[in-house]
Amino acid sequence: MTACIDTLDTPAAVVDVTRMQRNIQRMQAQADRLGVRLRPHVKTSKCAAVVEAQIAAGAQGITVSTLKEAQAFFQQGITDILYAVAMAPGKLTQALALRRAGCGLAIITDSVAGAKAITEFGRAQSESFEVFIEIDSDHHRSGVRSDDPVLVEIARILHTGGAVLKGVMTHAGESYSLNTLEALQAIAELERSECVKAAEAIRAAGLPCPEVSVGSTPTALSAVRLEGVTELRAGVYVFFDLVMHNVGVCRLDELALSVLTTVIGHQAEKGWIITDSGWMAMSRDRGTQSQASDYGYGLVCNSAGELIEGLQLRSANQEHGVASFEKGQNVDIEQRFPIGTRLRVLPNHACATGAQYSAYEALDERGEARQWPRHNGW
Amino acid sequence: MTACIDTLDTPAAVVDVTRMQRNIQRMQAQADRLGVRLRPHVKTSKCAAVVEAQIAAGAQGITVSTLKEAQAFFQQGITDILYAVAMAPGKLTQALALRRAGCGLAIITDSVAGAKAITEFGRAQSESFEVFIEIDSDHHRSGVRSDDPVLVEIARILHTGGAVLKGVMTHAGESYSLNTLEALQAIAELERSECVKAAEAIRAAGLPCPEVSVGSTPTALSAVRLEGVTELRAGVYVFFDLVMHNVGVCRLDELALSVLTTVIGHQAEKGWIITDSGWMAMSRDRGTQSQASDYGYGLVCNSAGELIEGLQLRSANQEHGVASFEKGQNVDIEQRFPIGTRLRVLPNHACATGAQYSAYEALDERGEARQWPRHNGW
Repeated sequence: MTACIDTLDTPAAVVDVTRMQRNIQRMQAQADRLGVRLRPHVKTSKCAAVVEAQIAAGAQGITVSTLKEAQAFFQQGITDILYAVAMAPGKLTQALALRRAGCGLAIITDSVAGAKAITEFGRAQSESFEVFIEIDSDHHRSGVRSDDPVLVEIARILHTGGAVLKGVMTHAGESYSLNTLEALQAIAELERSECVKAAEAIRAAGLPCPEVSVGSTPTALSAVRLEGVTELRAGVYVFFDLVMHNVGVCRLDELALSVLTTVIGHQAEKGWIITDSGWMAMSRDRGTQSQASDYGYGLVCNSAGELIEGLQLRSANQEHGVASFEKGQNVDIEQRFPIGTRLRVLPNHACATGAQYSAYEALDERGEARQWPRHNGW
Repeated sequence: MTACIDTLDTPAAVVDVTRMQRNIQRMQAQADRLGVRLRPHVKTSKCAAVVEAQIAAGAQGITVSTLKEAQAFFQQGITDILYAVAMAPGKLTQALALRRAGCGLAIITDSVAGAKAITEFGRAQSESFEVFIEIDSDHHRSGVRSDDPVLVEIARILHTGGAVLKGVMTHAGESYSLNTLEALQAIAELERSECVKAAEAIRAAGLPCPEVSVGSTPTALSAVRLEGVTELRAGVYVFFDLVMHNVGVCRLDELALSVLTTVIGHQAEKGWIITDSGWMAMSRDRGTQSQASDYGYGLVCNSAGELIEGLQLRSANQEHGVASFEKGQNVDIEQRFPIGTRLRVLPNHACATGAQYSAYEALDERGEARQWPRHNGW
């Protein structure tokens, strides 16, 4: 018996495969237009079938957030993998094992100490690690500034220390806090220009820097030109979510991930519909809280995925969600949403919501669901 | 080779077994003093070894938040299980399978529609489900009010419909928002008195109501007397967390769960220590945000678990945490916390943080770590 939206156990993380494929096509077309390779960040889905679809559409290589993802996707046959978190010395053994097994794993660093740890370990193990230097293009998180002299020092340590200096990479995470096309285009250009500047500084010192890797979903979709860039990285576009909708890079009907839930009770006087989608099902992510539109724990759709005007998951305990309409909306909730009713909730943040599940339920255009496992953990 | 705090891969969810055992003893002693059975809520740990320790200390039966937990712990040999989320009609088949296999699973409802769904399914399957009626003692979430005539109606539907009316249960979730002994004692008394009142209303109608089940960690630890109550439920006490510390029911040195993390970089001018404990490792739970002391994503300890004064995990991306000292504290962070340094972060909410992991690393008094798997999912 094939599962469908009416028979799946709840809560479930449902992927609308048609929407997902459209999102994949859209980002690939953008990379193609900009003349750069697309290296999707698979931390959003952590899922073989999703990554397969991204590669089928034209992606070249993947970005991972954990070495567990690297191991899993390497086993799936992907060899071109960038681990985009500054390398902890204690994880070099795992990275070495992957490279020895034939995985073209590249790692990153943003410090002299990090670069030394990599080259010292590499020399001791007779391994030339492929390394990107992380650039801080927007003062958001990690990385070295393009005009910081330490940048060339790190490049030199890597190059003379026996590592393969692959290039520079950056992620303008500040783009998540913006919501106008002008601001997004400006930060996309900042991300590009700072990363290119860093590459030029390294090349000016006579060191190699073949790759210039940039990206985030908002900047990737807003960039007008990517001169000097060789590859684009983006992750959450594959599903999109309410945070991305608030940023302004997707419509609500492009959201490909939703949580299927069942009504389990009511508090009628308060207008509360109690569901089995608590924070365990939604994640605790309240990314829209600080944005122009706060969507609570999510916007509620019927089981066909059509938005129910004004209905929001407003609070969540571990296994209980509380949905209600906007104040003033007069709805007989017990009548309209009796116990057992199935609903679908669009989440704040697809990466966080997906992480609450060991598998997605992938819903195809015929309405049939298949399980798509995720590679969780570290 | 036995793992220890210096060799574990990071991030890891570390359980201090000595502290956990003390927390278990403390709650068991409280239940013993109050003259009631203790039925721990295992949604916090979802872990066989933890539940085994709770039962060894005197717990009788367990509370679960998912039927997956019920299945897992039943396989472990526990038969007295209360599934404390209002029964969705679609989940009755799973509940039936458990009962048919010999599990003494009890379920709950708080509505006429829910009670009818249970009794109709029960009659069709010739199964007498054991059912508790959920009472709303504090206007917090689900449940029927003790003075609502529908309470007796639900009891009658269950009793005459062939179910076993086990009793009433309530959870005063509002207790999480309090932080004085007086207020906690008052809500514990409200939880008790409302639930007892509900039981009396059912009994006054000539219907059975043998069990009166109440509890939450704050009310359980604050209750002065529990007259009329037969059992106490509580969950997070087994590990405690920063939210419970703010509520005032535990000291910081009673927190048994921490996230072991590695320093992977710095932004020295900003005073940022970058760690590999992002929100994937900590969860997105910011429970202390609305409390008197906001601890960000957690308080930071050294690898021995000793608090580092003023150091907090202030922000988190998926696999990056940013820790910093309070403004004005002059610390040479690169010198004091070089790349590779191991730290331990006390989380906001133990239930949410644990859920990010497939297993705990249980650290015994000799400093040796063993993996304790969790039963995640639904």
